[in-house]
Amino acid sequence: MPHIDLPKEYPGIRSLFVFRPETAAPLNALVQTLLHNPHPTLSPGERELIATYVSSLNHCQYCATVHGAIAKHHLQNGDVVESVKSNPNKAAISDKLKALLEIARKVQISGKEVSSAEVEAARKEGATDIEIHDTVLIAAAFCMFNRYVDGLATWAPDDPEVYDLMGKQRAEEGYLTPPFKIQPQPKNAKS
Amino acid sequence: MPHIDLPKEYPGIRSLFVFRPETAAPLNALVQTLLHNPHPTLSPGERELIATYVSSLNHCQYCATVHGAIAKHHLQNGDVVESVKSNPNKAAISDKLKALLEIARKVQISGKEVSSAEVEAARKEGATDIEIHDTVLIAAAFCMFNRYVDGLATWAPDDPEVYDLMGKQRAEEGYLTPPFKIQPQPKNAKS
Repeated sequence: MPHIDLPKEYPGIRSLFVFRPETAAPLNALVQTLLHNPHPTLSPGERELIATYVSSLNHCQYCATVHGAIAKHHLQNGDVVESVKSNPNKAAISDKLKALLEIARKVQISGKEVSSAEVEAARKEGATDIEIHDTVLIAAAFCMFNRYVDGLATWAPDDPEVYDLMGKQRAEEGYLTPPFKIQPQPKNAKS
Repeated sequence: MPHIDLPKEYPGIRSLFVFRPETAAPLNALVQTLLHNPHPTLSPGERELIATYVSSLNHCQYCATVHGAIAKHHLQNGDVVESVKSNPNKAAISDKLKALLEIARKVQISGKEVSSAEVEAARKEGATDIEIHDTVLIAAAFCMFNRYVDGLATWAPDDPEVYDLMGKQRAEEGYLTPPFKIQPQPKNAKS
């Protein structure tokens, strides 16, 4: 059960956005810029994989499953999402993205964990300053979103189809359109 | 030395905002809403103390010192800032703010660390849903900002007067005005 009185027809961060529209606006603008808007080199699917991986490391079921579904819709490939979550080094992704995910893994622990070794490894695979910057910020932002969602004990659906619908919506529309309502079933209405 | 090529006349997150204005806009809008804009019950100084405490727990020198300076200017009290950083329970703050700082301390570890025990303790001191929500989001947001600043190894000034000037600027102007330039001295130009 959520720690505060949230609208029950919206799960996860969606309930928090409805509860507090003042902070929803900049948070959605941030994620729209980081994950959905055109990027010089990283596709939306690649950026969603970074978000999914960090959310998975933080054990945030809601964020890891939703962003995994968004990545799947962008990439038209669910297998790569699952393999990034279990072990990025064995995933069918570029060596550059593997190196960026290693930077993200360090950020999840602490910003101070990122050393010049990981950054140089990414540069050797062709990573640019913008890619390194955005990887660090995406990873840091999901250390915020994961804490926000779990710190207020929002409810997470169990039904994979619900996540697939949310993933399809965000992959197609981005983050600035209103969320749709979900009727929580008793079995799903857990925190 | 920063991991990417950042403008040297701006320290900490200021250099990242100049490097990447696309993400600076929503990040500054977020912190303006969370910390500076009018709030139903929490003063800007109280909210800056939450940001300072979490930054201190994350050992982010730049953020802890700047937000400590902003809190000092709002509250006209530097001692309370130092005592919150060392032990909030011994600080000259309200019991409600102590309970909110305990929620923030849990969020810094992980969102899943926040249990109904901390939330109920805050409610007993009069905390509202909005206060609990904003405390969790401020703490989560500083887990992002701290990782962003340290994950890219931005430089942090050593001179306390520089932080005091930055703190005065943000306490008076909020977060939406341009930063001023700082000439890094060789001894200060460390990451």
